[in-house]
Amino acid sequence: MAVEIKVRGYHLDIYHHVNNGRYLEFLEEGRWDYFDRHAFIELFESRQLSFVVANININYRRPAYVNETLRITTRIDHIGNKSGRLLQQVWLLQQGEAVELVADALITFCLMDESTQKAVVIEGELRAILERMLEEGL
Amino acid sequence: MAVEIKVRGYHLDIYHHVNNGRYLEFLEEGRWDYFDRHAFIELFESRQLSFVVANININYRRPAYVNETLRITTRIDHIGNKSGRLLQQVWLLQQGEAVELVADALITFCLMDESTQKAVVIEGELRAILERMLEEGL
Amino acid sequence: MAVEIKVRGYHLDIYHHVNNGRYLEFLEEGRWDYFDRHAFIELFESRQLSFVVANININYRRPAYVNETLRITTRIDHIGNKSGRLLQQVWLLQQGEAVELVADALITFCLMDESTQKAVVIEGELRAILERMLEEGL
Amino acid sequence: MAVEIKVRGYHLDIYHHVNNGRYLEFLEEGRWDYFDRHAFIELFESRQLSFVVANININYRRPAYVNETLRITTRIDHIGNKSGRLLQQVWLLQQGEAVELVADALITFCLMDESTQKAVVIEGELRAILERMLEEGL
Repeated sequence: MAVEIKVRGYHLDIYHHVNNGRYLEFLEEGRWDYFDRHAFIELFESRQLSFVVANININYRRPAYVNETLRITTRIDHIGNKSGRLLQQVWLLQQGEAVELVADALITFCLMDESTQKAVVIEGELRAILERMLEEGL
Repeated sequence: MAVEIKVRGYHLDIYHHVNNGRYLEFLEEGRWDYFDRHAFIELFESRQLSFVVANININYRRPAYVNETLRITTRIDHIGNKSGRLLQQVWLLQQGEAVELVADALITFCLMDESTQKAVVIEGELRAILERMLEEGL
Repeated sequence: MAVEIKVRGYHLDIYHHVNNGRYLEFLEEGRWDYFDRHAFIELFESRQLSFVVANININYRRPAYVNETLRITTRIDHIGNKSGRLLQQVWLLQQGEAVELVADALITFCLMDESTQKAVVIEGELRAILERMLEEGL
Repeated sequence: MAVEIKVRGYHLDIYHHVNNGRYLEFLEEGRWDYFDRHAFIELFESRQLSFVVANININYRRPAYVNETLRITTRIDHIGNKSGRLLQQVWLLQQGEAVELVADALITFCLMDESTQKAVVIEGELRAILERMLEEGL
């Protein structure tokens, strides 16, 4: 239901914790998995839309160390007129339970029409799908 | 005076532009270079302080493509009580001139006392140095 | 029993297949997982030995594309006097079956004594453990 | 004339030296730069050939640490019938002089015809260019 990543030696940097930049790869893995589970690729492709990231705002709350297991959660946080926002959280797991927030990020995106190369207004069936997901906490 | 990076094939992702996560590595390269130029490592080490990133807020404004050359600029943007903020910009270069903003990021940091593991109040000589840099646009 | 990785957009490069360098990260993930399963970390740490990679010889046999699932297998291939060799293979999976070899690599390593910083002769109980694994195809 | 890279904190891993996989990125940067300097991209594109890496054989000879400066050199090592080989070396620099070999790698490549997707025989003008470079140590 969510991506889990065991922290490895190659994820660390000189400070012996997961490098700041590496989290963006963890979050991207989380988004691809989320897109898979909710058939987003098909949803966007059938409309010839691309998911384009406009802003990432990430808080680093606690360092993550080797051998720790992290869970990446992703859900819709907001749907605007021409943009939306995902909330992604990186949790430290212990015995399979999320016990502490390691990082969280808001990902502001737009859906770009591949022919016009412009962000489209999120409306109609697409908006309905996203709003239902927002209500259900997906 | 600033890091310049030529975009290579391995910086790109499936969308044929520089991957979102890769920018954080470009920015980190920019910060290391900035720290070198302003002797920040020595400044912090002599006080047994660590530079800790608390938040990164990055806007992706224009995709960057293979063979383009990017310049990463870094300067102090704000000095608070227990935290500070760097502004980093990624510029597209043409004939050595910055012609378009590719991305910009605010990097909120604190200076952590290595013995107490707590953020210190930025005061005294350290504050004076940072404030002078802020005034001078460094 | 082995690491499985779904190829994502951020694994690709300008050629639209998994970047050559990225495979080394896949292989390293495979080794960490292998070390976990065979309690290698404990085995080496209790003897104050470090696993040091001396050579990687990797064949790229077939490009890997987005959404493909890869399995990374790892086993001991050879035990010499002061060095050993792992064989790692990257397989393309279809319906959970390994159907085609994507890449394979020989990883030559030595075990370095952390006090002398020299490679030790692989002998005694340590050799016995590794030889049994070699015989059993582990 | 060759790529120089200053080792940064984000290049390191849990062992506090440059991660094994990161060298492949340093080597790839070296090859792109080499291709730029020798107009290889144009040479291959005009013939609708792709440079495809078939094998990388890399020796790790000495760890590289933060703040060290590395030079990546690249030259042709061998030209076969349907494949060629580059020699790439990673040198530790001190006062601008290469003082110690950090890593070296043989990169076996073929030139793939983009229409047939098969490796071509290296002959004619292309062979002449590569053989002249080999003779001149380029």
